[in-house]
Amino acid sequence: MKTLEGKYYADPGLFREEMERFYFGMWVCVGRSEQVEKAGQYFLAHVVGESVIVTREESGTVRAFYNVCRHRGTQICAAEKGEFSGRIQCPYHAWTYGLDGRLLASPHMEGDGFRKEDYPLRGVGAEEWEGNIFVNLASEPRRTLKEQLGDLPEKFAAWRMSELRRYKHERYEVKSNWKLIVENYNECLHCPILHPALNKVTNYMSGDNDPSHDGYVGGSMEFRGGAETMSVDGVRRRDFLPGLNEEQRKVVLYYAVYPNLFLSFHPDYVMVHRLWPKAVDRTEVETEWLFHPAEMTKEDFCGDDAVEFWDLTNREDWWITEQSQKGVSSRGYVPGPYSKSEGLPAEFDRKIREVVK
Amino acid sequence: MKTLEGKYYADPGLFREEMERFYFGMWVCVGRSEQVEKAGQYFLAHVVGESVIVTREESGTVRAFYNVCRHRGTQICAAEKGEFSGRIQCPYHAWTYGLDGRLLASPHMEGDGFRKEDYPLRGVGAEEWEGNIFVNLASEPRRTLKEQLGDLPEKFAAWRMSELRRYKHERYEVKSNWKLIVENYNECLHCPILHPALNKVTNYMSGDNDPSHDGYVGGSMEFRGGAETMSVDGVRRRDFLPGLNEEQRKVVLYYAVYPNLFLSFHPDYVMVHRLWPKAVDRTEVETEWLFHPAEMTKEDFCGDDAVEFWDLTNREDWWITEQSQKGVSSRGYVPGPYSKSEGLPAEFDRKIREVVK
Amino acid sequence: MKTLEGKYYADPGLFREEMERFYFGMWVCVGRSEQVEKAGQYFLAHVVGESVIVTREESGTVRAFYNVCRHRGTQICAAEKGEFSGRIQCPYHAWTYGLDGRLLASPHMEGDGFRKEDYPLRGVGAEEWEGNIFVNLASEPRRTLKEQLGDLPEKFAAWRMSELRRYKHERYEVKSNWKLIVENYNECLHCPILHPALNKVTNYMSGDNDPSHDGYVGGSMEFRGGAETMSVDGVRRRDFLPGLNEEQRKVVLYYAVYPNLFLSFHPDYVMVHRLWPKAVDRTEVETEWLFHPAEMTKEDFCGDDAVEFWDLTNREDWWITEQSQKGVSSRGYVPGPYSKSEGLPAEFDRKIREVVK
Repeated sequence: MKTLEGKYYADPGLFREEMERFYFGMWVCVGRSEQVEKAGQYFLAHVVGESVIVTREESGTVRAFYNVCRHRGTQICAAEKGEFSGRIQCPYHAWTYGLDGRLLASPHMEGDGFRKEDYPLRGVGAEEWEGNIFVNLASEPRRTLKEQLGDLPEKFAAWRMSELRRYKHERYEVKSNWKLIVENYNECLHCPILHPALNKVTNYMSGDNDPSHDGYVGGSMEFRGGAETMSVDGVRRRDFLPGLNEEQRKVVLYYAVYPNLFLSFHPDYVMVHRLWPKAVDRTEVETEWLFHPAEMTKEDFCGDDAVEFWDLTNREDWWITEQSQKGVSSRGYVPGPYSKSEGLPAEFDRKIREVVK
Repeated sequence: MKTLEGKYYADPGLFREEMERFYFGMWVCVGRSEQVEKAGQYFLAHVVGESVIVTREESGTVRAFYNVCRHRGTQICAAEKGEFSGRIQCPYHAWTYGLDGRLLASPHMEGDGFRKEDYPLRGVGAEEWEGNIFVNLASEPRRTLKEQLGDLPEKFAAWRMSELRRYKHERYEVKSNWKLIVENYNECLHCPILHPALNKVTNYMSGDNDPSHDGYVGGSMEFRGGAETMSVDGVRRRDFLPGLNEEQRKVVLYYAVYPNLFLSFHPDYVMVHRLWPKAVDRTEVETEWLFHPAEMTKEDFCGDDAVEFWDLTNREDWWITEQSQKGVSSRGYVPGPYSKSEGLPAEFDRKIREVVK
Repeated sequence: MKTLEGKYYADPGLFREEMERFYFGMWVCVGRSEQVEKAGQYFLAHVVGESVIVTREESGTVRAFYNVCRHRGTQICAAEKGEFSGRIQCPYHAWTYGLDGRLLASPHMEGDGFRKEDYPLRGVGAEEWEGNIFVNLASEPRRTLKEQLGDLPEKFAAWRMSELRRYKHERYEVKSNWKLIVENYNECLHCPILHPALNKVTNYMSGDNDPSHDGYVGGSMEFRGGAETMSVDGVRRRDFLPGLNEEQRKVVLYYAVYPNLFLSFHPDYVMVHRLWPKAVDRTEVETEWLFHPAEMTKEDFCGDDAVEFWDLTNREDWWITEQSQKGVSSRGYVPGPYSKSEGLPAEFDRKIREVVK
């Protein structure tokens, strides 16, 4: 099994096709339910250049709409987040919509057979799973979020992600193709040389890879040297997440959920990455650190050890993927051989080759 | 009648075709006669990437040339404006031309049948109307400026634009397609929500639209609340322009003259916009405020009330056209319905569809 | 003979073809031997977007490799220059190569028929001439460096370039096509008007042009007004280069060696330019001033007079080539006539038209 051909990392046309298949054709994770905890709160999701309003109806249902007025096509919301006072109003000619997208007011449009019901905001699919919000921009989604996730909900039920809350949120601009970031996340053969801090607390040859799945790749990793969680000193400064059994308390799980979500389950916190490809050679990565509210309300709560550890490790990874981007774009690059320790990136590449030719 | 399809705002190929038809195929306004009041004065006009020298001959005729030496193709003038000492000299090998473009000197070119008369500067069409200079980059202009303007000269004769002089000149970079700026200029349905200051002094439902013309769209607007001109307080601080009758003193006329000139006639001044498309999603707008010299020489002359009012209103308009650009570029955009109050933008769109398919 | 058509300066497709023919298909000069004086020293050459490691083996042979690991395609060296401790190691998964490119170590790759000898670094041609290092990125170079240089080594033997050392190195970003820089370098008809300082010490109508050659164009120029070298005051502050005869001490030779090297031989120093096209309208120029070590070790050695003189002259030349780039990209440009004093640029253009159609 060899790495992907150079065109997969350098050809803008192939990149656009990947975006159609993976980002416009699947459920993509855009944020956390707590960002629209109350009805009328909203945030903007940016999916491959498309601006999407994500909000919550009075009924509690999450809704998502193209950020485009049905009158003259104006982008309605300019602020990245905010709260609607029950209605969504375009700042150009004051067309006004309900939180469900229905057109409520359209000044001076009377006559000519104009009917308000013909001009609701254009909705996009929106669903939640364990506190994560997903949208689907396909005109007719091929399947439900549940179908796309497969057995994941069951597999990760013990970590009770829906109970967790954001402690810290970070954005990284990475000058590399999104697939290099996925391939990097899915193997630890590079850990001894690239991540000295991480290599102290985890054994890169430990753990198991999950057998092949349609919607994700991932596996586990074990601690070493007495470490109990991922941090610079390996010390666990928080109680175990409440639902974990003995075995789950001893490992970290790393899962790349297609197309854009990395879930890193620790004994005492969860780290989330969301990948936003911007161009064939540029990706924005959002990283969130989620903790249990019971911990976060404690007076001596500390989350920065986890944040600092992974911020350092993230930056090491972005640097090497940027070095990879430069190399695989060269006419000197030819696909190279994967070792047995790189089964997950190889599996991901197989998926890519299957979908985009 | 619906708004234009998204491709008209996002497709670079279609943009280039528009530029060919509207900017390279028509007379475009590049400045004011007073910029080349004396023979030998010049300024550079930038027409869709082309640098054009605009100057005046000793005879008083305005001339325009490509800013390109006939020897090695070097751009001759680097400064945006200046004054030739009777001759136009290239800074590379000193080829020297007259103000009429004839090649006068070309060092060391003797022999080989070289004839100076074969290498004049390449001229482009140049004409004046009421103190406005127009150029035409077509190799053979389809019609004269007079033919292109139609009945405009008669219609606006009373404002005697040729007598007016620049008080203030401003440049704006707008991140939107040029047509969104034309559509925005041609309706005031957006005024109550977008322009609170403007809405105080003018009645957005007042005035008349001119019936359809080949070369322009426009109409009138009336004051309200005792206002006598467009300014933050509606107070008129200058005499009426000398040629206006009672009726003309009570209105503002807004005309978009194809392809790139907006003329806004006020009772006591004239505002001019010139649109310079830079890319499918980017336009530079020049704005000038012209006053009567008899006013400008008065000791207590004030023009800043008009400048500040429109600078504020301009910026509000550029902001919303930028919001529109973002929206109409989305895959969520579909053409929407124009109301009866949006007859002029609809008329402009009809013209666009007719010329560019 | 007329100048090149506008497409040669504006068409990105034609630019890519030129790069294939001239930069990927020929030996290009990338630096000086002294940069890798000791075995294991390296620097990165950047050839039209390709990063190339240039180093020296223990045997003394110069070697060059694509800066791309054979495992996952990662760019190996991030620093522009440095010294290998006998081995070249990729920072991602620690694949390790010898200075000859052989793969020495590849952790965890055992099994599956993996053989180290199948994965050496991909080499590119590397040769030296008189202290100048050339590389050739063609998969099979059409000819040796010696064949490409033709009679140049003999012609310039007296200046003993291999003995000279860098005193100063400068990089310039020029917003013009690389060919405009070649054309500018090859004629002095522009000197009286563009270079007042240079025009004082050299007679632009003097000297001889070499008859046409396959691999270069060039010729000589004589001093005037008592000048003995090129500097602001024409004063020679260094001994003549040791190998020069009476005649060679009285001229400056200017040679453009295809595709990317300018050699300017002075009685007491040598100036080197290397051209690195970045885009159809953008070129980076490296300039080096080389002196004899016997001079450079003198207590009262001065080289800045030569550096300052040419830095000024260089910048004048870059400015006018940028003006040329703007002009020849215009639709107002048509090829113009070369005079007899512009025989070398005409010869260069002939070569370009022959290779790229």
